[in-house]
Amino acid sequence: MASDTSQQEMQQVLQKAWDAFHVYRNFSLRQRAGFMRAIAAELDACGDGLIRTAMRETNLPEARLRGERARTIYQLESYAAACEKGDWLEARIDTALPEKNPPKPDIRKMLVPLGPVVVFGASNFPFAYSTAGGDTASAFAAGCPVIVKGHPAHPDTSEQVAEAILRAAQHTGMPEGVFSHVTGISYEVGKTLVTHPYCKAVGFTGSFAGGKQLFDWASQRPEPIPVFAEMGSVNPVFLLPEKLSQSAPEIAAMYAGSITLGVGQFCTNPGLLIGVESEALQQFIHDLGKAIRQCIPGLMLHQGIACAYSRNREAALMQENVHLVAEPENGSGEEDSLYGQPTLATVDGKTFLGNPLLHKEVFGPYSLVVRCASEAEMLEVARQLEGQLTCTLMATDEEVRSHTELVNALKNLCGRLIWNAVPTGVEVCLSMQHGGPFPASTDARFGSVGADAIKRFARPLAFQNWPDALLPDELKNGNPLGIWRTVNNEPTRMSL
Amino acid sequence: MASDTSQQEMQQVLQKAWDAFHVYRNFSLRQRAGFMRAIAAELDACGDGLIRTAMRETNLPEARLRGERARTIYQLESYAAACEKGDWLEARIDTALPEKNPPKPDIRKMLVPLGPVVVFGASNFPFAYSTAGGDTASAFAAGCPVIVKGHPAHPDTSEQVAEAILRAAQHTGMPEGVFSHVTGISYEVGKTLVTHPYCKAVGFTGSFAGGKQLFDWASQRPEPIPVFAEMGSVNPVFLLPEKLSQSAPEIAAMYAGSITLGVGQFCTNPGLLIGVESEALQQFIHDLGKAIRQCIPGLMLHQGIACAYSRNREAALMQENVHLVAEPENGSGEEDSLYGQPTLATVDGKTFLGNPLLHKEVFGPYSLVVRCASEAEMLEVARQLEGQLTCTLMATDEEVRSHTELVNALKNLCGRLIWNAVPTGVEVCLSMQHGGPFPASTDARFGSVGADAIKRFARPLAFQNWPDALLPDELKNGNPLGIWRTVNNEPTRMSL
Repeated sequence: MASDTSQQEMQQVLQKAWDAFHVYRNFSLRQRAGFMRAIAAELDACGDGLIRTAMRETNLPEARLRGERARTIYQLESYAAACEKGDWLEARIDTALPEKNPPKPDIRKMLVPLGPVVVFGASNFPFAYSTAGGDTASAFAAGCPVIVKGHPAHPDTSEQVAEAILRAAQHTGMPEGVFSHVTGISYEVGKTLVTHPYCKAVGFTGSFAGGKQLFDWASQRPEPIPVFAEMGSVNPVFLLPEKLSQSAPEIAAMYAGSITLGVGQFCTNPGLLIGVESEALQQFIHDLGKAIRQCIPGLMLHQGIACAYSRNREAALMQENVHLVAEPENGSGEEDSLYGQPTLATVDGKTFLGNPLLHKEVFGPYSLVVRCASEAEMLEVARQLEGQLTCTLMATDEEVRSHTELVNALKNLCGRLIWNAVPTGVEVCLSMQHGGPFPASTDARFGSVGADAIKRFARPLAFQNWPDALLPDELKNGNPLGIWRTVNNEPTRMSL
Repeated sequence: MASDTSQQEMQQVLQKAWDAFHVYRNFSLRQRAGFMRAIAAELDACGDGLIRTAMRETNLPEARLRGERARTIYQLESYAAACEKGDWLEARIDTALPEKNPPKPDIRKMLVPLGPVVVFGASNFPFAYSTAGGDTASAFAAGCPVIVKGHPAHPDTSEQVAEAILRAAQHTGMPEGVFSHVTGISYEVGKTLVTHPYCKAVGFTGSFAGGKQLFDWASQRPEPIPVFAEMGSVNPVFLLPEKLSQSAPEIAAMYAGSITLGVGQFCTNPGLLIGVESEALQQFIHDLGKAIRQCIPGLMLHQGIACAYSRNREAALMQENVHLVAEPENGSGEEDSLYGQPTLATVDGKTFLGNPLLHKEVFGPYSLVVRCASEAEMLEVARQLEGQLTCTLMATDEEVRSHTELVNALKNLCGRLIWNAVPTGVEVCLSMQHGGPFPASTDARFGSVGADAIKRFARPLAFQNWPDALLPDELKNGNPLGIWRTVNNEPTRMSL
């Protein structure tokens, strides 16, 4: 349905984004926030029609899509508030010391936008991480025009959201080119965008192969640019013995829900459960298996994802010493491969440590229990795993205290460390970190959820010896915007 | 003198740094700061011997080296203070909202260290950007062990500073491997360090070729890592007509000093002066030329830099329509090529725009005046230049107001924008930005001077639903460290 945007059109889109950048970057924080709020209102005004389109294209249920749109609207509004509040600007002022030898000049610094940002829509979040999602919202807040390449799995949804953004841009007087929408199935579309001199940063949520390709293109340009690719993870859960012996059935129930939530199509889906051989672990596996067997398989997002799940699941299950524990009793019928079969398997710790394939994500409702022979082996698993979005520790207070080495290893492994809960559910707030050491994301120094995500698309610019009247409002003596600034090393909202 | 560290020794150094990381990362901010202050004290205690060694190896004068060591000591002390103060941690707390649907968990985030950092010493700052320089200090503050590859141009200086750091590490109880010093002339030493899995970030100050090579190695690793390479720039100065007509002689005098300061071996040396054809510009060129002719050439850092300067200067002067305006009347005598001849040349704007070689830095006391036919041509120059560490605008208030497009172009071009002053002199303070769009540096989102440089070597880690007693002190309810934190979106030093 969505034909590739032509090369000629893409050149025009990039030129328009570049021209718009020089206008939009000078728009005030309030103007940017107004634009973002207008997008939120337009998304809301799309009403049931947009939900129906998304249901048809994504197989996601209505309630989920309504919830996701509400989340997207909340994201736009909360990043708009953060944009205006201005903490993200990291405004710093050091006043002159003319009596110093040599004299110290007046220097003031704030973040300024990088330039046009290319955003690749995600298939698993048709609203929240696609056309008007978190990457787009944070780029707009930073002062960057956005070019979205809509995900080919939901072209009509993406198109309708793009139209909503363009209406908002028009109503709020944004420059032409502040937002553009392109489509394409061939990789050439993405390559043209990412390697173009006018593209200054990239946002992506999706597979490792896709994200790594964008990163390689971007870092091999004559002028390398940053790529913020969130590429998923297995989100290991470490089950400590005392905790498990206290609450195996409750943990099993909690995790049956987390593993199968959204047919396992969340990047924070817990794909690895690591415990030490014990009666409690047997009980946990038994209870979790029972819950999985009672699940009703759901439809996956699209044929490509369903096929990949089926293939990767089979490959994992075929590995030596991997045992299938449970899949639903009431299977969907093999004829319709769009259904994702919830699956629980186990493997011993030694086999796991020796087989890197088992460390990889199986995107979908699949989880592998690693039965370690000892706590030392569990620690070794924590040390050998690749970078993760999240790690979870199921442990008593006392176990956290006594497992310093394991806790340290987990801190080094992930972007978010959860205690006695599930990794699914990514709260939109400033303290959230959604990102992690490679290969969870391409730049662990930033995350894609919460207002700190704005900083991905900005860089510091210092003004030295600049006359007050000609400084940006953000840095003027009088602090007309009333933002928090660090003045001579002290955070303050006061004027000078 | 400095033989290459053997491959076997390097493996040991990397292993020790990795082991030290797991200890040092858990050291408190106060312990890290104590270590850094001890290094400062040891550097001071090195006394005259270290200055004499550096004089012998760098050709830099005594006063400059004493000043640079004092600056290095100040950097260590000021980054130690910033480390303890903790603003750089970006601590954020969002408290739980159990009544929300779904319930919002308690989430708290702070920056944590990346891992061992490899620092490449710079030849032009044997103290401030070498072994115990800004990169080393910011990595230690962030909680990262450091491996320095000493610059082969000052091996004994580097060795003496390394010994000072190791003494400080021992006195303050740091883990073995928190600091190591390796040497090498062959590129294999650098490649081994940067491509090793235990190296997690790189700091570099030097040439474009060197920095870009490190960036390529680092981004093509199986696990890419960040490289913070500051690769210099031509630091263009835009001379607006009214300002020039008011003060051509004063500006000429100011710039004669800036161009020749330290034999032009600062990365912020103004290598390009752009004006519009006028009598005032002729006067400026005349006065500046006169000052340059009266300069006494100084010794450059080492043979390699002096040869490169001579070669690049000749190549620039041989370009069509480039005219030599001035070089010292009392030349050093051509026989000793270690002397850097201060040189002023001119070219017309059209030729400049058409010849990319003229846009490149000639590292040394060389400056090119671009005589534009019009203000439009001057704007085109601003738009065509590559990324810069600094840009300078010499202009009246009124000219700043009336040249919006030029000011916008300069903001987009550089990391630091100076008004009516010179770019040389890089103040060590929080508001400084030393870094800029590529090719000035490999990551414009960070700088290498001022305490924000600490953030280069850290990444966010979020704790979700974590019990207060088991959180790091930085995130505990009681705020035992008394640091600034953002609690439910408001900056505060209060406890919860």
